[in-house]
Amino acid sequence: MAQGALPGFRDFYPEQFAERAFIMKVWRDVARRYAFVEYDGPPLEPLELYTKKSGDEIVGQLYNFKDKGDRDVALRPEMTPTLARMASAKANSLRKPVRWFSIPQLFRYERQQRGRLREHFQLNVDIIGEADVTADAELLAVAIDIMRELGLQSDDVQARVSDRRLLHAILTRLGVPEQSRPAAFGVIDKLHRQPREITVEKLTAAGLSATSVDRLLELLALSRVEELESRIGTLATDGAVAAPSGELSIETVLGELHRYFEYLARLGVRDWVRLDLSIVRGLAYYTGTVFELFDAKGEFRAICGGGRYDTLLKSLGDVDLPALGFGMGDVVIAEILRERGVLAEQASVAQPDFWIGSEQDSQRPAVMLVATALRRAGASVEYALREQSLSKQRKASHAAGATYFVTLDQAFETSGTVHVAPFAETATPTLTELLGAESTTADRLVATVRENPHLLSSTL
Amino acid sequence: MAQGALPGFRDFYPEQFAERAFIMKVWRDVARRYAFVEYDGPPLEPLELYTKKSGDEIVGQLYNFKDKGDRDVALRPEMTPTLARMASAKANSLRKPVRWFSIPQLFRYERQQRGRLREHFQLNVDIIGEADVTADAELLAVAIDIMRELGLQSDDVQARVSDRRLLHAILTRLGVPEQSRPAAFGVIDKLHRQPREITVEKLTAAGLSATSVDRLLELLALSRVEELESRIGTLATDGAVAAPSGELSIETVLGELHRYFEYLARLGVRDWVRLDLSIVRGLAYYTGTVFELFDAKGEFRAICGGGRYDTLLKSLGDVDLPALGFGMGDVVIAEILRERGVLAEQASVAQPDFWIGSEQDSQRPAVMLVATALRRAGASVEYALREQSLSKQRKASHAAGATYFVTLDQAFETSGTVHVAPFAETATPTLTELLGAESTTADRLVATVRENPHLLSSTL
Repeated sequence: MAQGALPGFRDFYPEQFAERAFIMKVWRDVARRYAFVEYDGPPLEPLELYTKKSGDEIVGQLYNFKDKGDRDVALRPEMTPTLARMASAKANSLRKPVRWFSIPQLFRYERQQRGRLREHFQLNVDIIGEADVTADAELLAVAIDIMRELGLQSDDVQARVSDRRLLHAILTRLGVPEQSRPAAFGVIDKLHRQPREITVEKLTAAGLSATSVDRLLELLALSRVEELESRIGTLATDGAVAAPSGELSIETVLGELHRYFEYLARLGVRDWVRLDLSIVRGLAYYTGTVFELFDAKGEFRAICGGGRYDTLLKSLGDVDLPALGFGMGDVVIAEILRERGVLAEQASVAQPDFWIGSEQDSQRPAVMLVATALRRAGASVEYALREQSLSKQRKASHAAGATYFVTLDQAFETSGTVHVAPFAETATPTLTELLGAESTTADRLVATVRENPHLLSSTL
Repeated sequence: MAQGALPGFRDFYPEQFAERAFIMKVWRDVARRYAFVEYDGPPLEPLELYTKKSGDEIVGQLYNFKDKGDRDVALRPEMTPTLARMASAKANSLRKPVRWFSIPQLFRYERQQRGRLREHFQLNVDIIGEADVTADAELLAVAIDIMRELGLQSDDVQARVSDRRLLHAILTRLGVPEQSRPAAFGVIDKLHRQPREITVEKLTAAGLSATSVDRLLELLALSRVEELESRIGTLATDGAVAAPSGELSIETVLGELHRYFEYLARLGVRDWVRLDLSIVRGLAYYTGTVFELFDAKGEFRAICGGGRYDTLLKSLGDVDLPALGFGMGDVVIAEILRERGVLAEQASVAQPDFWIGSEQDSQRPAVMLVATALRRAGASVEYALREQSLSKQRKASHAAGATYFVTLDQAFETSGTVHVAPFAETATPTLTELLGAESTTADRLVATVRENPHLLSSTL
């Protein structure tokens, strides 16, 4: 038993559980306000669900094995394939747009990253069945409102948004042929993680002229739509290649971006957002808007990433519905909140409202009666489970962090009198104020608690 | 994508998730009232954690495999080994008694039981560090109070309790030598699942005389401590074998049982409990009181089982602390609640408080403003994410189950007027009563909502 949890896995003692519960409560509460409903899938899925989307190379990062029925299975590394499977199975009967969220625990076996976690909890919020940019604004607003609700502000966290359709249209205007796009996207994705010379070199290798490289890097540095618009207006069009079929024009995408930013303003989150065309989100399945949330100081990894993936459901199954979503893990958020002191303040382990004590052990059955009545009134109540001196009981109550230490009067059997000593009452009006005296009857104490639920702790 | 979840695994669509969330909310709320705090461990653990407690034969029932670091690992089939590991690691610093609960998802690969689930969620409630029977009463009260809080009554569910120390003492009195105890316990465990002749035959084979078998079966049929006590008083003592060292006398255990039942009465759950000495809970690690909860009609498997396991922590590690706990799965509870109609009534998918509509699509930004203000006041709000006729919006609002359909007045920009149509308002006083009119300003609507949180849905 000397051994602990597996490397990369967390034990959640009550202190750590309280932090996790605080974050999840905010996730759920904000998702509810945006009228999203919660779902979940199995933590173990057929391996094929992941190789189908990501290819066989993902297997190296999975907790996969053969089960006793000889099925290839894997612990879920992400939620989107499960979402796609579930939504596809009921695509016809689901009310559109589907507004779903989930809080799965996800697993990745990452060999190289010693000390890094191999599991985390990730909020997934998705909208299925709506192509309009209103949905994109609504989705990003959820992510940002969570930051606000966690106690962070627009100078703590920034959302950087882009639109892959815009980047495509710009590359067309700059004369980058379709076959060079993946290479160009790859370079742009790493823009802030490699020296400018390397970026220039790689973009040139991808087929961009020196002028196009300069112009692209200029555009990628802009953070306002208006600036971008005027700069694009000065781009020569004579070097452009023919747009691949279905590709939107720069002007059309810019029009959508304008609506996006206007809606973000109406949804009260505009201050948190800036344009950043270098946000690509890998070479994955995104088709439109993409975004990431970062702490403003740039100390941590991304808090959250998401965007529109209009073709994914079709490619994974036979349901052709536009969709968008984001994932937000618990680990980076906890690090930021811990650094800001938010967790210490808000995510404390539940403490009893009342500790019931008595001077004589013969009163234990009466202690239980009072505890039961208070519990039925909604209070959290603890008492000594063995014979203890009153001073020991008081110490235990203090150690448990009980808000009130209630002592049965020696004549409790006949009088019903109890004495209520507050340790750290904060709810206003306080119980002490409501009772008006330190001594009262158990009946009156219980009735007062029942009528004043604001006095009581609640589950996180 | 035609394939679904793995056999034995559940997809939780919002409807099923709401049922699960309702049950978990009750679990958490009752545990909180009894001042238990939540913890969690990893769903994947070293295989050894389970073979150490249960022997190698358990491996046949596990989802076990070698991870990419060549470690033998298993999806957790039960929580107690994780609890023992975690509590042992901090045994010295934890406040005693430890009052912890957890809601892990557990996994078992059961080959033979096709159609049966291979995962479930299980509430685990444990007390560590208290040997007094007060703790046993407190623990059982938690399980029963959960039943009450779920909407069940003492004629729906029965708790059957026994005490393995009593059974041992009775077997001593009946002359059953120590080496025959495991066989006798095995027969008693199956008492209600096999014909009386077989039971008699097996007990005889275990070394009981014909008289002892008769007397034992008489005692096992009793359901009141007082009956048991008077019947035991009539047992001849001359056939008794010597009690194994450390075994308590019948009288001592009966005294403890009396206290147990008295405390259960004070904790308000006596009506739900009856004595049943045939409750053995397998040949596992229990050392004292044991109990199971069943639906009174006997239609379902056990709802819950638990008891005292004073030697387990010591046998798994080097921490010698008395302990007791129970496990309660979500599946049987859901079946019972579904049959009683409780889930249909109480576990519905969250619905928006407000749907914001408008006649002109140009008002969409204003719709967003109102939605945002209501969301910041705590309400759950939805609106159309694309251009739609007002009648389509009204239909969508109805389909979503929104409590109020709010329409922006055509002159909203200048007047700020909105029209509030209730669909199914239930909270009293209703919003309609509080507003006093069907039309009001958005500001007044928002202020009224903020000041009256009782109007709003909350997360489960």
